[in-house]
Amino acid sequence: MTKRSADDPIRVGVIGARGRMGAEVVRAVEAAPDTAVVAAVDADDPLSALTDARAEVVVDFTHPGVVMANVRFCVDNGIHAVVGTSGFDTARLDEVAGWLRSEPGVGVLVAPNFAIGAVLAMRFAEVAAKYYESAEVIELHHPRKLDAPSGTAAHTARLIARARAEAGLGAQPDATTQEDAGARGALVDGVRVHSLRISGLVAHQEVVFGTTGETLTLRHDSLDRTSFMPGVLLAVRSIFDHPGLSVGLDRYLDL
Amino acid sequence: MTKRSADDPIRVGVIGARGRMGAEVVRAVEAAPDTAVVAAVDADDPLSALTDARAEVVVDFTHPGVVMANVRFCVDNGIHAVVGTSGFDTARLDEVAGWLRSEPGVGVLVAPNFAIGAVLAMRFAEVAAKYYESAEVIELHHPRKLDAPSGTAAHTARLIARARAEAGLGAQPDATTQEDAGARGALVDGVRVHSLRISGLVAHQEVVFGTTGETLTLRHDSLDRTSFMPGVLLAVRSIFDHPGLSVGLDRYLDL
Amino acid sequence: MTKRSADDPIRVGVIGARGRMGAEVVRAVEAAPDTAVVAAVDADDPLSALTDARAEVVVDFTHPGVVMANVRFCVDNGIHAVVGTSGFDTARLDEVAGWLRSEPGVGVLVAPNFAIGAVLAMRFAEVAAKYYESAEVIELHHPRKLDAPSGTAAHTARLIARARAEAGLGAQPDATTQEDAGARGALVDGVRVHSLRISGLVAHQEVVFGTTGETLTLRHDSLDRTSFMPGVLLAVRSIFDHPGLSVGLDRYLDL
Amino acid sequence: MTKRSADDPIRVGVIGARGRMGAEVVRAVEAAPDTAVVAAVDADDPLSALTDARAEVVVDFTHPGVVMANVRFCVDNGIHAVVGTSGFDTARLDEVAGWLRSEPGVGVLVAPNFAIGAVLAMRFAEVAAKYYESAEVIELHHPRKLDAPSGTAAHTARLIARARAEAGLGAQPDATTQEDAGARGALVDGVRVHSLRISGLVAHQEVVFGTTGETLTLRHDSLDRTSFMPGVLLAVRSIFDHPGLSVGLDRYLDL
Repeated sequence: MTKRSADDPIRVGVIGARGRMGAEVVRAVEAAPDTAVVAAVDADDPLSALTDARAEVVVDFTHPGVVMANVRFCVDNGIHAVVGTSGFDTARLDEVAGWLRSEPGVGVLVAPNFAIGAVLAMRFAEVAAKYYESAEVIELHHPRKLDAPSGTAAHTARLIARARAEAGLGAQPDATTQEDAGARGALVDGVRVHSLRISGLVAHQEVVFGTTGETLTLRHDSLDRTSFMPGVLLAVRSIFDHPGLSVGLDRYLDL
Repeated sequence: MTKRSADDPIRVGVIGARGRMGAEVVRAVEAAPDTAVVAAVDADDPLSALTDARAEVVVDFTHPGVVMANVRFCVDNGIHAVVGTSGFDTARLDEVAGWLRSEPGVGVLVAPNFAIGAVLAMRFAEVAAKYYESAEVIELHHPRKLDAPSGTAAHTARLIARARAEAGLGAQPDATTQEDAGARGALVDGVRVHSLRISGLVAHQEVVFGTTGETLTLRHDSLDRTSFMPGVLLAVRSIFDHPGLSVGLDRYLDL
Repeated sequence: MTKRSADDPIRVGVIGARGRMGAEVVRAVEAAPDTAVVAAVDADDPLSALTDARAEVVVDFTHPGVVMANVRFCVDNGIHAVVGTSGFDTARLDEVAGWLRSEPGVGVLVAPNFAIGAVLAMRFAEVAAKYYESAEVIELHHPRKLDAPSGTAAHTARLIARARAEAGLGAQPDATTQEDAGARGALVDGVRVHSLRISGLVAHQEVVFGTTGETLTLRHDSLDRTSFMPGVLLAVRSIFDHPGLSVGLDRYLDL
Repeated sequence: MTKRSADDPIRVGVIGARGRMGAEVVRAVEAAPDTAVVAAVDADDPLSALTDARAEVVVDFTHPGVVMANVRFCVDNGIHAVVGTSGFDTARLDEVAGWLRSEPGVGVLVAPNFAIGAVLAMRFAEVAAKYYESAEVIELHHPRKLDAPSGTAAHTARLIARARAEAGLGAQPDATTQEDAGARGALVDGVRVHSLRISGLVAHQEVVFGTTGETLTLRHDSLDRTSFMPGVLLAVRSIFDHPGLSVGLDRYLDL
């Protein structure tokens, strides 16, 4: 890895380039003035296309069966990797961290969610939680979604619960004695989560906080799948300053 | 009952005048330019104060144990009655209707909710329901509330369900296969209802409708108990044109 | 025109079938179980394709220069026409009405907006307006939009203003004495309208009503261009019951 | 000042105790389990009542004409001061800082806004601003308000503008070529601010951020004047750890 010149566009390789997400990444990287796709690799293409094209950063939206080999190739060849593929557990993250020990200049970002607003909203929820008596989460998605609540909503609830516990807040006030089953939502670590499934929607989340005389509401709306593109581009641009393994896009934001 | 002159303020009697709601009614009736309190009656006062003061309309926010005697007195004396007291079932309504048969010029309005916005939102929900694939209800209240969902939310859900049935709409689309208990809310006649309890809030409701590519949201916020005052005043002014028994403020609105 | 059998899909012709909107119409009509595209006509195709295919209803999303000839052809051949093309002024509407006098069984719908939610929200705003002291309109669109406020927002404001005038409401309460230019929005017939231009948004509108202690908010969100499809399909299905000229989709809704 | 015991309630003196805000402070301090009012002083009472009662913290909601003498008294007597009175310019702040140099253990907090949510929302807006192409502010207040936009909204806009400038963001995208005067709001340092005046509302603010495919909305609602109480109590409890002069409640929050 040599120091890159700020005048040249960042040389980006995309793995999974013909997939639904990968194709969007190709479009976004091409559209940005300071980044360029130098290699678009899919299932049948050799990874050597990335080194041949002298890619500086690789973006990987593939699947759990192939992503480890892809990341290994990047690390071994001194290429930074921005990874949106799912399936990373602690064992896999440890393995990646092990590879990086012999390539300390290389950065790998593994992130479950590239929508900047989702990441910011989670962080803000965590900060606000300790100042409010009440906090509940509403998430709204299209009706084709299989799980309720969404992973992001459950994660947000857990962050809020942890922040409340650290601040010494007790249980939330709630005098409910008569409840139709389910009315008060699902309980995630003591925080209520409500899931709506509505035709026409994409992915939306609202966190409502309240205390005496006032409320604070944090709302994030993803209107289409391009919503993760600004986050991917931010990662591509910032990874040069983040050698080693980072988990979660929030590590790249100045929060 | 003689034809009233539009130039004079409407002569209003208030029963339960020292109660929480009654006191607000006294204030609101006094504050409006076209209405005046001529008798403020509470638990120990004789109802004859209403006839002595030639009240044209009586507003009753008392309790189920005394309200029937109050309404009877009004009907017998040709005084219109606006009733916000709870506890009216079919038997009681039938009894009032019976009294009114011998006083066909007298109007009695029995209404569970005088917040105009709540009444409008329910009516609009009913109209919109038949045009949308999806419809869910969110209600948000202070955490001292005992029941979930609120009566208004459950009623709104039933109105939506009936409108959907009449329009021949089937079940709402929902692919959920993995649900944390309660995440999808309470099911009221096939319509999901979600209840939040948040410090600082008063009484709020949101109905979310969705179909291909678009959503419609109807939101009503009561910010304090004075929110029922415009509805009470509207009823006091309109009751002269509505002889007989009316149930629900929507009967007085031009919807 | 012969009485149609409810068992057969409605035979739909699409003019402008390769345009951005027309192509969506083709997809939606094909996807619905009770409608079928029998003729897809574009700029260079003869209109006789519509009669050859025995289209019962034509949908026209073309442009002002050709739409009148298209509608004329439909009326003369006893085909109902659902028209989303812009540019209809009173003179054009009068001309269409004239043609329809000799074909009293044919229906023509000319509608500026097929998003059902936008139509419902406008109607609800009109109904609610007379019960509230305050009413303002917020519209939010993508930043590529050229005009502010949007046509729909200005139209909504005028409907509110007319309803207020008919109800005898005076000017809205507003004690503002110090205003940074523009803070209070544009004044459309006495109703304030506020326009936001935000990346990532599509087309959104919110009407906020308020009176003592309570507010009512009507919000419509169009998340993508398919949002007009349910309205087009509703028109295709309903036009058989609406002979003659109708202007505005609200004429087909049961409001 | 001696080290206080965590077991005893904090001894609070209130100046302006019979004013609208002061009376609320008395109520809130009495209601909290860990604070107690030991002196309630108003216009005609001697300040020595504060020292006689061994007040540890004083809360001052008075007026610009007397507040400086009150703060001076507190500093000279080693009493911490939480000040919500308006009228502090740089000269006054410098003067207070001067007094504190000889009493380094005493804390003085001067804060224009004690609503925690308002403070958090401003801080979050500042953080989010650099990640979004678009940002606009909507504030909604009761119609008795004299100025538009509100001071908080203008301040929020300036914070956003500064964060955008520091991040090297240029002007916001906006293709508007036809604007009815005021539709696009007031321009505060390049950020659009929209002011609504609606009966029934109290004090509400919404900041809308947008970028490709997604939006983030931060909303704060003050529903009544008690909304500043949690902030006052937080200040009373935290001031022991913040000797010297602090300006703005955000200095006491862990952001």
